Amino acid sequence: MARPRPLSGFPEWLPEGRIVEQHVLDILRRTFELHGFAGIETRAVEPLSELVRKGEIDKEVYVLRRLQAEPGDDEADPAKQLGLHFDLTVPFARYTLENSGHLDFPFKRYQIQKVWRGERPQDGRFREFYQADIDVVAEGELPFHYEVELPLVMADALAALPIPSFTIRVNNRKIVEGFYRGLGFDDTAAVLRVIDKLEKIGPDGVRTQLEQQAGANESQVAACLALASIRTADTSFVAQVRALAGEHGVTDAMLEEGLAELERVLATAAELNPGVVVADLSIARGLDYYTGTVYETVLNGHESLGSICSGGRYDQLATDGKKTYPGVGLSIGVSRLVSRLISQGLVEASRKVPTVVLVAVSAEESRLESTRVAAQLRARGIAAEVSPSAAKFGKQIRHADRRGIPFVWIMQEDGTHAVKDIRSGEQEAASPAAWEPPVADLKPSVTLKETGANE
Amino acid sequence: MARPRPLSGFPEWLPEGRIVEQHVLDILRRTFELHGFAGIETRAVEPLSELVRKGEIDKEVYVLRRLQAEPGDDEADPAKQLGLHFDLTVPFARYTLENSGHLDFPFKRYQIQKVWRGERPQDGRFREFYQADIDVVAEGELPFHYEVELPLVMADALAALPIPSFTIRVNNRKIVEGFYRGLGFDDTAAVLRVIDKLEKIGPDGVRTQLEQQAGANESQVAACLALASIRTADTSFVAQVRALAGEHGVTDAMLEEGLAELERVLATAAELNPGVVVADLSIARGLDYYTGTVYETVLNGHESLGSICSGGRYDQLATDGKKTYPGVGLSIGVSRLVSRLISQGLVEASRKVPTVVLVAVSAEESRLESTRVAAQLRARGIAAEVSPSAAKFGKQIRHADRRGIPFVWIMQEDGTHAVKDIRSGEQEAASPAAWEPPVADLKPSVTLKETGANE
Repeated sequence: MARPRPLSGFPEWLPEGRIVEQHVLDILRRTFELHGFAGIETRAVEPLSELVRKGEIDKEVYVLRRLQAEPGDDEADPAKQLGLHFDLTVPFARYTLENSGHLDFPFKRYQIQKVWRGERPQDGRFREFYQADIDVVAEGELPFHYEVELPLVMADALAALPIPSFTIRVNNRKIVEGFYRGLGFDDTAAVLRVIDKLEKIGPDGVRTQLEQQAGANESQVAACLALASIRTADTSFVAQVRALAGEHGVTDAMLEEGLAELERVLATAAELNPGVVVADLSIARGLDYYTGTVYETVLNGHESLGSICSGGRYDQLATDGKKTYPGVGLSIGVSRLVSRLISQGLVEASRKVPTVVLVAVSAEESRLESTRVAAQLRARGIAAEVSPSAAKFGKQIRHADRRGIPFVWIMQEDGTHAVKDIRSGEQEAASPAAWEPPVADLKPSVTLKETGANE
Repeated sequence: MARPRPLSGFPEWLPEGRIVEQHVLDILRRTFELHGFAGIETRAVEPLSELVRKGEIDKEVYVLRRLQAEPGDDEADPAKQLGLHFDLTVPFARYTLENSGHLDFPFKRYQIQKVWRGERPQDGRFREFYQADIDVVAEGELPFHYEVELPLVMADALAALPIPSFTIRVNNRKIVEGFYRGLGFDDTAAVLRVIDKLEKIGPDGVRTQLEQQAGANESQVAACLALASIRTADTSFVAQVRALAGEHGVTDAMLEEGLAELERVLATAAELNPGVVVADLSIARGLDYYTGTVYETVLNGHESLGSICSGGRYDQLATDGKKTYPGVGLSIGVSRLVSRLISQGLVEASRKVPTVVLVAVSAEESRLESTRVAAQLRARGIAAEVSPSAAKFGKQIRHADRRGIPFVWIMQEDGTHAVKDIRSGEQEAASPAAWEPPVADLKPSVTLKETGANE
């Protein structure tokens, strides 16, 4: 077997990179659990028919077949074909419906899993990647306050990560839909889809497409672009939108409702976590199912990476005909984030292995003794491994050094034990039943190297 | 959308079941890290050509294609087709070769991921399931002592789980191959494959197949069956095998080497973890690549479940033509284990959510105040959520009770705070800056209900 090469779009990390990724995943899980979200996992596959219901995304689905499938098998029946999930929202909707009789609503869940998309791989775009989602879903009615709270949960999670500072940009579908309707558009979704491309195609591109796809006149185009240009760190956007609406003679009840909601999001965020959430009236989110607050998040100084945490409110995550399940949720693109941290060397893991102590072996005959020392350390929560061989002491030190293992345990000829910090070279007498490493050395640490870290 | 139904072979758990699964996964990871194993993850896919190199398993592979793949795309080129991995060994071998220049050998890694097999689902047999693997792989030469140590790492891991007691059954390929060769068989692998089916087809089935597939005579069949019947909890198997070999005139250097190795595994295990490891000369392990010690593990009283943790030593996990990478590893079938625990009600999670405290809301106007209390608790590591609505107090208690949340936080009209243990009904004055729940309540606990637990 010749040396294999990486598959484009399917990122893998060396052990030191995996420590970074695992650290990020641990912090996310910890934060979500502190907020009372229950963890679930769904299977990797969904019926293809469920995956392609939203036309937008069907190009990207990976379909499965068994290598030895035969005519008459499930795989030959299009109604029974399975595909890999491309996000965690479609599976969560299905899970909610399937188990609604066994879940307690409002149901707060987090879900951290890999998803797959058959897209052409690019920088920050993968075919296999981790998403970390939180959603609250209700049976019947979902209180508005969750639209205020969920981005703040994500703000807590992101603030705990070794990443640069970030900004959560928030908008409300009711504002833009109400405004567009007030401007005289019938197909507000078409307008929204064009505005969603603003960053990519620029104002001139938007103008052309609005004219062609939504039959917009010059005044309407100007109003749409003006609305999308409103960004405020406080609730002053309300006055700006009202002024713009006044100029264009727009009055709409849904617009007013949206303004009140977004104002509440901004005001509460300013109380609880000042400086993190801003109003950005250009945020559209392409997916049609959002109906209220929508969110995007950028890393400050890494805006080109795109949004690392997005989501919104949907009135109908799922319905079984009798009941509907409205919800609100956000999703972090973990792999995109971790890939940036690793590939640009923004973070550093303190070592490549979990081991705190390498227990040296002075002769193969005494390996059992070294093994007992390691077991005593482990029993007290100190990760320990025994040297692979009774090589010269210098070689055993190098084994530890190459992996970043901070301590080497030595059983001396007189029967006493000592532990050596190989970073400082300091050595002290120690007992395997009592010695404790500094707390900072207990686990590999991951630190942000860049200055201007997220405080 | 009608209520969806579960997909056979793709297990999913309700939140309380996921707490059990997550608890098991956490303990495994924790134990592996305490022993100094570095965690890695590999992508879910491998080139199909790599997956089907071992003929035995090719029926089970799921092949991927993009829904919109066109002629000329990678998916149309058989050499570039991708399949889902069916175990974690093939991907680990590929990862080792691909990154050999960046890894430190001997490389100890753990890997906990889902794998997929297109098998017909049955009890304990899934199409998607978790495996938890540990392996040590060396460049060039792997010291024998790892064959002694690795099953003891798994014994530590399994002993920490909420499962019944277990037995690790060990054999050595050199014993059986040397013995078969000494009996006059040329194709020892063929004999091994038949013996591997002993439990399934019984002695008569083995007799027939040995005669047909290996040309065995009556004395050879008797010798093979006699060898497979040797099971000892100590090193007395050595004398039994030697006696049997003497009866049949078998002398073989490899047999002697295998006996010495297995003796060392049993002797060391008896020193470090008495009663867990037994010698069982019937253990064959179907896969051809094992070359030394082989392992299987059964849950005592649940032998019908089959092996929950298996593996062995292989001289050549991978080779790039210049270097070879021998290793030894074991794999736990986590889903098989967890499914048994959940479906037979052997374990119980103390609650359905991570939340320790539900902070009550007396009126929607004071939600912010409740949110601040929850934030204070979280800052000290206490999982807290705020009540979804300012409903009657009894309804808020029921919200906690249904989920198993042990404490409700109450802000009283006089401005003081109290916390109520809803299990006992006891209520005490409390400050969000100082109150601590009992340590046992900090996280959901998972306990084995069955008597005869693994001590």
